[in-house]
Amino acid sequence: MSTIGRTIMPSMAGLRCAVLGAGGFIGTNLCRALAEQGAKVRAFGRRQSFPEALHGCDWLPGDFTDSTSVAAAVSECEVVFHLVNATTPASANVDKLADLNANVASTLRLLEACRETGVSRVVFVSSGGTVYGIPDLVPTPETARTNPITAYGISKLAIEKYLGLYEYLYGLQYRVLRVANPFGPYQTALKNQGVIAAFLRGALSGKPIEMWGDGSVTRDYIYVDDVVESLMLAAYHEGLGRIFNIGSGEGRTLNDIVGSIDRLLGEKIPVDHRPGRPVDVPVSILDTSFAASDLGWRPHTTFEAGLQATIEWMRSSRSD
Amino acid sequence: MSTIGRTIMPSMAGLRCAVLGAGGFIGTNLCRALAEQGAKVRAFGRRQSFPEALHGCDWLPGDFTDSTSVAAAVSECEVVFHLVNATTPASANVDKLADLNANVASTLRLLEACRETGVSRVVFVSSGGTVYGIPDLVPTPETARTNPITAYGISKLAIEKYLGLYEYLYGLQYRVLRVANPFGPYQTALKNQGVIAAFLRGALSGKPIEMWGDGSVTRDYIYVDDVVESLMLAAYHEGLGRIFNIGSGEGRTLNDIVGSIDRLLGEKIPVDHRPGRPVDVPVSILDTSFAASDLGWRPHTTFEAGLQATIEWMRSSRSD
Repeated sequence: MSTIGRTIMPSMAGLRCAVLGAGGFIGTNLCRALAEQGAKVRAFGRRQSFPEALHGCDWLPGDFTDSTSVAAAVSECEVVFHLVNATTPASANVDKLADLNANVASTLRLLEACRETGVSRVVFVSSGGTVYGIPDLVPTPETARTNPITAYGISKLAIEKYLGLYEYLYGLQYRVLRVANPFGPYQTALKNQGVIAAFLRGALSGKPIEMWGDGSVTRDYIYVDDVVESLMLAAYHEGLGRIFNIGSGEGRTLNDIVGSIDRLLGEKIPVDHRPGRPVDVPVSILDTSFAASDLGWRPHTTFEAGLQATIEWMRSSRSD
Repeated sequence: MSTIGRTIMPSMAGLRCAVLGAGGFIGTNLCRALAEQGAKVRAFGRRQSFPEALHGCDWLPGDFTDSTSVAAAVSECEVVFHLVNATTPASANVDKLADLNANVASTLRLLEACRETGVSRVVFVSSGGTVYGIPDLVPTPETARTNPITAYGISKLAIEKYLGLYEYLYGLQYRVLRVANPFGPYQTALKNQGVIAAFLRGALSGKPIEMWGDGSVTRDYIYVDDVVESLMLAAYHEGLGRIFNIGSGEGRTLNDIVGSIDRLLGEKIPVDHRPGRPVDVPVSILDTSFAASDLGWRPHTTFEAGLQATIEWMRSSRSD
């Protein structure tokens, strides 16, 4: 056990695990941290945005909808980290059936493979920003009503329910992390996701920041290192909780973010306003007190410290 | 408007509607009531258990997974009643992926067809006995946690969420009725469902009653005429509620049912005990106060009056 701040972290040394969606943003950060701590990591994904970042992991290229590849990736693993997003909130609403097939049906095949190959636990990254829909209560606790306004959120929720079913029927353990808006190194600004990455890329390359809507949309931004810690805690958690909100517990508007970027860069970045997207709920802030009390997790990185680290990573990766 | 007891019923005369799953138990009863009141009913289903019962309806044979047939059935209807169960709680757990495809994916195709052909409203029969899982609170209100222990319940829940999404995105209205354990005329005892039909068929044919478990399993039984009234109310409901529990609000054990059958038949029917099924939650009783206050619905038929009517129907249909 090592201690980071007041969080007691389990040791990952020797853990046989698979990370599905390993080439993506959280996946890349998780794989790096697991490998660094001596875990035996199978990194499964369609493509690697940053191939050199997965040094020390066993890269298994494959599509999540290909059940044979998935079964091979998880076979004989103790823990499977399921971080696959086959769609985005915007694209899922365009073709809800494709979203259902790519995410939910493929996860059912994954769970069958886990059951057959003796996987002990699945840790699933769900979506704190979409499973609740328009929240009744802000900050929103895990017990709030779940009425997603995107097919993406419905898929995440259905997967959570199937995880509960597999534990009930077959003893396959699971933990769900409903992650807020993560940001940090290795985030790309593709597919209309990752607003901080997009803003920073604009600002650092001297272009105006493209902003959807009037900038009042409020989100809960969480630095990726803190998310990675929650995933590691979830791999070994023995408490009663199954579903945890992972966020900062604080709301920031898009305008707030621009203000922080201006402050850190020491200049006023111009903003180019675009019409708002209907998939956006106006406010999403997570109540993370249950993760604190039951999972033993707390974020350690302040927003501006995370932003500064992201800026430094972007600058260094641009100069590579 | 006509008044049945204290329930104010809307007129169904001239309503252009489709009943999907029309050949089944609730479907047959609903079609009969709609046709009797002058609705123009398209009755869609795989097969009719009681073909003569659908006199006055336009029978459209078809499979719910065949999107072309479904689209033709709902085209130009004002209201679509979605009563399809492609699986049972027991069979759905055996092949969860097949259940997902047959129920959820097919419903997504239905909703696309409704949107394209201008259907105003979908009334969906969900499952009061499976969407909650093992309930925290009994009687269980609509706001209770939903943690199904069957893939069947997860499918019903996912469909509820997609209905919410279609109303939010496209204005397609919906109402969900989480129906408890319905019983009455036209119920068959196939596929391990319809315990009352199965018990009565045994009792009336002089065979012992086959009982799964020790008889303590407690359910909320609701007479089908009351369920049909809730469906008609849901077709015209203008209140804020979307999801309603439909049940008696009272729990009965299997042993209670056998006692009632013995009383009504005036003899002691022998009982043959079999091992309990793991898909059964021990207790399911619905809190129906929201249906009373917002939908204006109350059950009118006592349990034993419903049982007596079912016995009479069984006796008359056997002599046909």
